Amino acid sequence: MEFAYDATTEQYRQNLLEFMDEHIYPAEPVFAAQLAELDDRWDWDSVPVLAELRAEARRRGLWNLFLPGEHGAGLTNAQYAPLAEITGRSPQLAPAALNCAAPDTGNMEVLAQFGNAEQQERWLTPLLNGEIRSAFAMTEPDVASSDATNIELSIVRDGDEYVINGRKWWITGAMSPNCKIFIVMGKTDPTADRHRQQSMILVERDTPGLEVVRGMEVYGYDDHSHGGHAELRFTDVRVPAANLIGAEGDGFAIAQGRLGPGRIHHCMRCIGIAERALEMMCRRTTDRVAFGKPLSEQGVIRDWIAESRVKIEMLRLLTLKAAWLMDTVGNRKAHTEIQAIKIATPTAVEWIVDKAIQAHGAGGLSQDYPLAEMAAGVRTLRFADGPDEVHKNALARYELRKQTERRG
Amino acid sequence: MEFAYDATTEQYRQNLLEFMDEHIYPAEPVFAAQLAELDDRWDWDSVPVLAELRAEARRRGLWNLFLPGEHGAGLTNAQYAPLAEITGRSPQLAPAALNCAAPDTGNMEVLAQFGNAEQQERWLTPLLNGEIRSAFAMTEPDVASSDATNIELSIVRDGDEYVINGRKWWITGAMSPNCKIFIVMGKTDPTADRHRQQSMILVERDTPGLEVVRGMEVYGYDDHSHGGHAELRFTDVRVPAANLIGAEGDGFAIAQGRLGPGRIHHCMRCIGIAERALEMMCRRTTDRVAFGKPLSEQGVIRDWIAESRVKIEMLRLLTLKAAWLMDTVGNRKAHTEIQAIKIATPTAVEWIVDKAIQAHGAGGLSQDYPLAEMAAGVRTLRFADGPDEVHKNALARYELRKQTERRG
Amino acid sequence: MEFAYDATTEQYRQNLLEFMDEHIYPAEPVFAAQLAELDDRWDWDSVPVLAELRAEARRRGLWNLFLPGEHGAGLTNAQYAPLAEITGRSPQLAPAALNCAAPDTGNMEVLAQFGNAEQQERWLTPLLNGEIRSAFAMTEPDVASSDATNIELSIVRDGDEYVINGRKWWITGAMSPNCKIFIVMGKTDPTADRHRQQSMILVERDTPGLEVVRGMEVYGYDDHSHGGHAELRFTDVRVPAANLIGAEGDGFAIAQGRLGPGRIHHCMRCIGIAERALEMMCRRTTDRVAFGKPLSEQGVIRDWIAESRVKIEMLRLLTLKAAWLMDTVGNRKAHTEIQAIKIATPTAVEWIVDKAIQAHGAGGLSQDYPLAEMAAGVRTLRFADGPDEVHKNALARYELRKQTERRG
Amino acid sequence: MEFAYDATTEQYRQNLLEFMDEHIYPAEPVFAAQLAELDDRWDWDSVPVLAELRAEARRRGLWNLFLPGEHGAGLTNAQYAPLAEITGRSPQLAPAALNCAAPDTGNMEVLAQFGNAEQQERWLTPLLNGEIRSAFAMTEPDVASSDATNIELSIVRDGDEYVINGRKWWITGAMSPNCKIFIVMGKTDPTADRHRQQSMILVERDTPGLEVVRGMEVYGYDDHSHGGHAELRFTDVRVPAANLIGAEGDGFAIAQGRLGPGRIHHCMRCIGIAERALEMMCRRTTDRVAFGKPLSEQGVIRDWIAESRVKIEMLRLLTLKAAWLMDTVGNRKAHTEIQAIKIATPTAVEWIVDKAIQAHGAGGLSQDYPLAEMAAGVRTLRFADGPDEVHKNALARYELRKQTERRG
Repeated sequence: MEFAYDATTEQYRQNLLEFMDEHIYPAEPVFAAQLAELDDRWDWDSVPVLAELRAEARRRGLWNLFLPGEHGAGLTNAQYAPLAEITGRSPQLAPAALNCAAPDTGNMEVLAQFGNAEQQERWLTPLLNGEIRSAFAMTEPDVASSDATNIELSIVRDGDEYVINGRKWWITGAMSPNCKIFIVMGKTDPTADRHRQQSMILVERDTPGLEVVRGMEVYGYDDHSHGGHAELRFTDVRVPAANLIGAEGDGFAIAQGRLGPGRIHHCMRCIGIAERALEMMCRRTTDRVAFGKPLSEQGVIRDWIAESRVKIEMLRLLTLKAAWLMDTVGNRKAHTEIQAIKIATPTAVEWIVDKAIQAHGAGGLSQDYPLAEMAAGVRTLRFADGPDEVHKNALARYELRKQTERRG
Repeated sequence: MEFAYDATTEQYRQNLLEFMDEHIYPAEPVFAAQLAELDDRWDWDSVPVLAELRAEARRRGLWNLFLPGEHGAGLTNAQYAPLAEITGRSPQLAPAALNCAAPDTGNMEVLAQFGNAEQQERWLTPLLNGEIRSAFAMTEPDVASSDATNIELSIVRDGDEYVINGRKWWITGAMSPNCKIFIVMGKTDPTADRHRQQSMILVERDTPGLEVVRGMEVYGYDDHSHGGHAELRFTDVRVPAANLIGAEGDGFAIAQGRLGPGRIHHCMRCIGIAERALEMMCRRTTDRVAFGKPLSEQGVIRDWIAESRVKIEMLRLLTLKAAWLMDTVGNRKAHTEIQAIKIATPTAVEWIVDKAIQAHGAGGLSQDYPLAEMAAGVRTLRFADGPDEVHKNALARYELRKQTERRG
Repeated sequence: MEFAYDATTEQYRQNLLEFMDEHIYPAEPVFAAQLAELDDRWDWDSVPVLAELRAEARRRGLWNLFLPGEHGAGLTNAQYAPLAEITGRSPQLAPAALNCAAPDTGNMEVLAQFGNAEQQERWLTPLLNGEIRSAFAMTEPDVASSDATNIELSIVRDGDEYVINGRKWWITGAMSPNCKIFIVMGKTDPTADRHRQQSMILVERDTPGLEVVRGMEVYGYDDHSHGGHAELRFTDVRVPAANLIGAEGDGFAIAQGRLGPGRIHHCMRCIGIAERALEMMCRRTTDRVAFGKPLSEQGVIRDWIAESRVKIEMLRLLTLKAAWLMDTVGNRKAHTEIQAIKIATPTAVEWIVDKAIQAHGAGGLSQDYPLAEMAAGVRTLRFADGPDEVHKNALARYELRKQTERRG
Repeated sequence: MEFAYDATTEQYRQNLLEFMDEHIYPAEPVFAAQLAELDDRWDWDSVPVLAELRAEARRRGLWNLFLPGEHGAGLTNAQYAPLAEITGRSPQLAPAALNCAAPDTGNMEVLAQFGNAEQQERWLTPLLNGEIRSAFAMTEPDVASSDATNIELSIVRDGDEYVINGRKWWITGAMSPNCKIFIVMGKTDPTADRHRQQSMILVERDTPGLEVVRGMEVYGYDDHSHGGHAELRFTDVRVPAANLIGAEGDGFAIAQGRLGPGRIHHCMRCIGIAERALEMMCRRTTDRVAFGKPLSEQGVIRDWIAESRVKIEMLRLLTLKAAWLMDTVGNRKAHTEIQAIKIATPTAVEWIVDKAIQAHGAGGLSQDYPLAEMAAGVRTLRFADGPDEVHKNALARYELRKQTERRG
């Protein structure tokens, strides 16, 4: 047992922490100001300060850290996880600056792992270079998205093309005009085995018949700072057959493979958010005097701070262990742990951010601090890949089965 | 002991429930659409459907129900409370349609109780007619608003005028161009006794030196549907001395008197929100099938529904009792109960709305349902008149003192 | 709406509060000492101080207050409820001193309402006089006691007798040698309609074949201070046919009728326990100094006190309303409220008592204070008449049905 | 980062798990029966099955595993921690069978580290052999035991002797007649520096003037199964000066050193209790049918199981990390983590055990299952070394200081 990060990770952490201090945090108000001046509200990716940060991140070797293998930095999940956490401290800016923002990360993984050479050249390369953005179109409005087998969008082969019909929503990033490519999940064969009906196919933004209907809002936020969440309508959308990723029927398996790392990234960034919120809570309560003493000397505030610290430590260890398991025994055997971090992290971080808000007074809910927007973002994770309740149910079922087996 | 509403209340409830069904609920999407088409984003008060609803409400005798005494419907707090609850079921529309929306309600109470004849004619009359809107400017950015004695805005007598300097924020309704009059709390004499330093004064919207700086946001909402929450700057703002409400030094007492009914209204509307959320949760989980059965047959959902119902019943009784105490023994002796409803209600309703959101999937967080906006609104109440923690502390101190006295 | 107690109730409350102060509280250590000296550990009913208290209570007209109608004090549920609360402040002694202790209360109600003249003379009269104790034998070890239709004990007619076979457990009071009569629930006709299979029959303690197997413990308490909780075995126990209460098949209906008042009593006594715990928490934290100031000045302690007070107020109102509904519309229509108090009260009071314990340090868990024993007693109520989860499920089902009907 | 146990630990774990299955679990009812037959209720240490288990444990090399260094098994904290967890699954029997039960463990550590050769020969050797038991007398009834500097018992030098006067309570194990030696903490110099006033001294059980007043109870349990918790009175107790451990004034430092490992042991055993409770919950809910299906298919039960599993995983990682830190950077630098496990573990395990009880119905509270006694034991840990609230306050103060330093 060894709880220290290895030397590689420590080196990256130091580099990244410096980058955060010297570039990311100072850029936050700049980014906000430049966003506000955009002609196209959704064109976040063209904001000047972002280009500068990306250039600086590349210069410092802080680029594509999330991606294992030859295409990326080659880090393991356990090595990247602590870096994802750090980027979570500035969730709007840092992941994007490092080209480590969802959903591009998962999409690059899919293309790196399952895309053919032509697909990689055409879409993976510009994504790796941060030249374009991508979206992952899986969730649908009328079915429970907690189960990928419920997908209804149809992908029908017609000669050298596939014809796509259906609806998607909550497609993160897709409102951005620079989001050039969508990985779309649909059914190629509704009569096949339950997990072989789905396929994934690449659809370019400008393909006729693909309509970006509107941006979904979360609380009042449209999240234009990272491309929003689009509702999409596909009406007889035709793409070359060569746009299929892998073979027909591979969709479910590819989606499953995409899940594990994504959860690690989300949870670690969430923990970074929690650290930022705790830091802000400490600072605010140290500075703010009420009833003759700093808020930080109030017992109830102390209680919040202590609980926050303890929760963060536990969440981090759980997530790191899940990452380590993925590295050592594979996603499938890390299944319980990957579910566990999804169950534990968003709820706990929501609590921490809520307390930080409360410590800030009404201002904590406003645009003057990043806390409310963080809270909204974390709240959505209780639905990501299905609501918490579905994950708890599945984890319990597995626990019951394991216990039954143990009793013999 | 008698838990039934009296005949007057029951009659009003029936009228109001019919009005809700026949006019308010159907008008919700209309209001949203008309709001979206406004040239001036903040000019909610001019939206056509609102005028129609107001006319209909007056026709039905559902007008100014909140106001005791000759100027209003003459109901007691305990009689009005159940009606406030019903309006909470459509929080953006119903209170406004009945001319029972905060902060106008509290302002009309102040003017009816403490305003002189001239002030009443000039400002109370158009408010009672729903012709103009008003704001209550008390909270300041740099001081803890939980304690009215912290107020720093200065009101200085200069001949026949008062000169006002200072800043305010979270001034609800003040972004609306039809919000014509502000009741401003400030200090006329910083050397007086702690509770005699403050005064209230009327400031018209267009007075030179009064600057509406910006709208505060709550999560991503700017709440333009009821006039937003303004930050205001007063720079050498001059108003006639006759604009003072009551005498110099009366400000604190007037503010205290305004608190009690306001809490009742807020909490009852909150309970109405909870009822609406529970209703939506029941409907959604009955209609939505997952894993082969309606969500409403899932034990965890049942648990949410049961807990919600039980919480609602308890909150309602507590709030009604506080209202009844205000009617029978006065605000001062109802002090503990008025604090108790403020402590108990927003937190519990937040929980209920959160569960309703969770039952709706990601859509529950979006503009497709009113739930997320309700959640945001309820969340702000944990800061209203000071954070919950301050109220709990005070309530406990009182309990300790009472117990000590009892022990002799 | 009227939240004040009526004059009758107020008069009884004053009498009872005086009795508590002058007799009950001072008798608590005496009772403990006399209990400890018993030869027969279970013979609590013969403890001298109890006889004195009972005599004094009768003298003061504080006797059989729980019982409506001619046999008792004739109070309504809403009138008795606040008195039950007061007795809960000394849960081991006060209910017994007033002849208002469970399960005798419910048993007397059954005999008063459903017993024939002979049964009343033989068993109700000595119970009303506090000469003997009784038990109610319903719960069985092998079936879910949340559903009375699961009962398995058999009651078979054989000439002029019934023959009883089966097992019971958690039969409160039955370890006491002075518990002379058991009301036993069993099945007379397993082929009848679901709610007509059960009957209730009177079995005297000394009937051959009735074996008191052992006392059940709750945490480490055997509750000998009120007769424990027995496991019973019935082996060919023969009783006269005249011992049947009502007719064959009436058992379920009688049991249902017994439930409502019992829940009110339990919950109100629970609230009395909560008041006692809160009082102890206030006293202890006022007296105990740590880190240079009384514990009562610690913010976290204040938070506990405030939350406790608010919870208690809400629970009391909910329970009083349920009592009032039983009085005005009957048990059946008060169904949701009777479930609600069962769901809300024990959990909340458990929390309050736990905080009171925490405020007392380790001593709070020990025999030096009544708190841990109170906690244990309250904990059992989360199982009474079935676990909370069953009640929540049923309440939610009803809510869902009501909401569906409302939608039409 | 490496989350796997090392080979040594794995080997011990396998041995221990086998020992648990083959000997400990089968011995549980035997131990209970033999305890019940004792003439001296407190003489648990002489129960025959315990001697057999100890012999078997020694034979298997499962003896004194807790003790680092030459006197014990030589394991690190991180190596022993997972073994402590396993012993927690049978908390009454396994720690005792392995000679790894508190408070002997801490006492042996103190003697091994600070005792002189004579003290070690006379008391450490028989303790290591499991021939006698020991107690640690620190907590006092009248002062807050969260702060060792509050200790009031006096130890006064008089020639070749020390004279001891004062009171102690909650002295675990001290009711047992085989508890031959007490390590007593008191003040030798109330005028010295705050952390140099205290000393530790060895007092034999039979020393004149040392009175075992009574056993403290926890809920209704007197914990005679491991020697109870005694109240002690020292009246002019004289012991040889050679009985002092270390030098005068060393008491505080010795006590601090004893804390860290003790917390790890307690928390890991707690986690073992949680695993046992979860196992019982799974088994019970799989076997018990209600409303036509196993309880384990109820969503609420599934929720409990999932939450329990997730909590357990987080607590274990947190505690293992604290152990690892103690091994690698020392107790002092592991301070926050040692506080964190104390804050997080008992509360969470209490929740898990409570749910396991609830899943068992009323029986879960009784002597038929070990759950209620486990709950009581875990509950006491929220007071161990001071109440949770004190630890949270301290942890928060440290966090605030760290954050302030970071801001520079």
